[in-house]
Amino acid sequence: MKKTTGLNELNLISEIKKIASATQDFNKTLLIKSIGDDAAVFKDKNSILVSSDSITENVHFKLKYYSFHDIGAKSILVNLSDIAAMGGVPRFFILSLFIPSYITKENIKETINGIIGVAKAYKIALIGGNVSKASEFSICIAIIGDQQTKKSKVIPRYSAKPGDLIFLSGEIGNSWLVHHLLENKELIEKFLEEKPEKRLIESFIKNFILPVPRVKLGMELARLKLADSLTDVSDGIYKDIPNLLNQAAGQTSGANIFIEELPLNHNLKKITGILKIKDYLSNAISFGEDYELLWTSGVENEDKIFKLSKRLKIKINKIGTVIDNSNEVCFFEGKKRFIPDNKTYRHF
Amino acid sequence: MKKTTGLNELNLISEIKKIASATQDFNKTLLIKSIGDDAAVFKDKNSILVSSDSITENVHFKLKYYSFHDIGAKSILVNLSDIAAMGGVPRFFILSLFIPSYITKENIKETINGIIGVAKAYKIALIGGNVSKASEFSICIAIIGDQQTKKSKVIPRYSAKPGDLIFLSGEIGNSWLVHHLLENKELIEKFLEEKPEKRLIESFIKNFILPVPRVKLGMELARLKLADSLTDVSDGIYKDIPNLLNQAAGQTSGANIFIEELPLNHNLKKITGILKIKDYLSNAISFGEDYELLWTSGVENEDKIFKLSKRLKIKINKIGTVIDNSNEVCFFEGKKRFIPDNKTYRHF
Repeated sequence: MKKTTGLNELNLISEIKKIASATQDFNKTLLIKSIGDDAAVFKDKNSILVSSDSITENVHFKLKYYSFHDIGAKSILVNLSDIAAMGGVPRFFILSLFIPSYITKENIKETINGIIGVAKAYKIALIGGNVSKASEFSICIAIIGDQQTKKSKVIPRYSAKPGDLIFLSGEIGNSWLVHHLLENKELIEKFLEEKPEKRLIESFIKNFILPVPRVKLGMELARLKLADSLTDVSDGIYKDIPNLLNQAAGQTSGANIFIEELPLNHNLKKITGILKIKDYLSNAISFGEDYELLWTSGVENEDKIFKLSKRLKIKINKIGTVIDNSNEVCFFEGKKRFIPDNKTYRHF
Repeated sequence: MKKTTGLNELNLISEIKKIASATQDFNKTLLIKSIGDDAAVFKDKNSILVSSDSITENVHFKLKYYSFHDIGAKSILVNLSDIAAMGGVPRFFILSLFIPSYITKENIKETINGIIGVAKAYKIALIGGNVSKASEFSICIAIIGDQQTKKSKVIPRYSAKPGDLIFLSGEIGNSWLVHHLLENKELIEKFLEEKPEKRLIESFIKNFILPVPRVKLGMELARLKLADSLTDVSDGIYKDIPNLLNQAAGQTSGANIFIEELPLNHNLKKITGILKIKDYLSNAISFGEDYELLWTSGVENEDKIFKLSKRLKIKINKIGTVIDNSNEVCFFEGKKRFIPDNKTYRHF
């Protein structure tokens, strides 16, 4: 953990180290050197996964809607999802903080508590990082994971076979609705006045403000070889499904998706009904940030996948099929073609 | 390489991939999956090093003084220095870009060219990353390296033994002077008018605007076991020397540093003379960002170290000794104690 500049860094870094000490026993057999040197050192006989993701104020969150605890938690949750999307085991992470002058020491502590709370839940260790002054608040995390055993493969994108079924965990659209509700908070409150629906909305926001990375599910899909191609829903299934499809020369596959099979939360339907939001389906398809797993698997695995769903208590839906030589993702509502508004959401 | 939000990301990422393709052959035997999936995948039998460093506009650079090419180059050079400071071999890196609206596509291309130019020189591959909108320009890099061979150890900090000599590569203070010259550019130009010294200053800035990470030297120190404790000069030797000293309970060591042995560039002396800057020595000691290697080694290794210096054509100076039970870094000018101004530079 190095300081880069500004701030009362030494205090800040010792504060981070103190809070992070709770994670230093995780994956200890792999770790040779953690926070405190020019680099962290580890050893791993299995294949190593590495990815990074950043969240930035006013792009991914607004300080008036998110607590610092939630911002911290979200920054690491989205990274965990990348390891889940390879069927890997998360192990370590490196934290880079960009801290503007209006962020207090207390704010930073809350953020770190949010990050470390998640790290503890997923048993990953903070092994290094840096802090820098900045004019807005950003968190950049690099996450390191590995393949579970030498025998379990990591699961790539772009490997779906024609005839494969397409599966999706959990629900989509909840992140979009939370975003919409927060962005229009005052308007909605005015509209609802003191109606009991207000409480429904509040509890929906509370339930879905943070994504749940499907780490355990990803690991089981890899271990049981139940996915040909795997990714997470970060940009909306409209954009994420093509990432599953084989794009090798002459092998362009496509997909048919059945709208009725898309898993929407019943409270999402209720709330969009109350607020008269008609295009909720397009939004659920195009907004993203759901961080559910999206994968393809041979028909012969269908039963095993639904058994896994029961065992892990994670909802899994079969939402479509991979088709040959089409190079197109088609949505169907019954037999009718459904064309989602491809709103390229830019998250503010 | 994932997009996080905003921008015309797809174009931007394909642009980055295109420029980065020149690096995809480096360390290919270790790499299983590079840019383009949810995470990169590699395999490594040796110990793995990982570190991150960020540079931010107005904190680490101002756009009016630095070209985008230099900003890109610097962002990866400072990370390479962290691997050098462990005696490791740099292998891969992950790039996170924070891009404000006033940065053009051309600016980004230049930045990436700066980064990839360095990556090619040091034979490291870009294996992933993300881009995000932001209100100021930042680059966050996570770098991955490894121990050269199973036999060569990585060299930590905090392992100096009393009696050890303290060595420093290259020169210190050049980064401080470049910073000072850029920050006071107009004033200095006015003062010098058209004097020939102007050219001296221009060439000094050109020579020292980018640090040179001592990767080869670090690797040789590890291979030949010529360092007990090793770090790089990022915060100035005043703060970096304590990082070499053993802080284990009851073993607090100290250091004596001899000012005459501190390697200052002759043009630094000339320019500070012309500009009548008296406190150049304190600045050279306290400013940092020199990214030279600083290490300790037993007296018996002195000859070997100077032979290495000759072979690598890198200046190495013996600047002091580690002493027992002192817990203090003392600077001496002859027999007189020298107290450097501990300017805690905040780089703007």
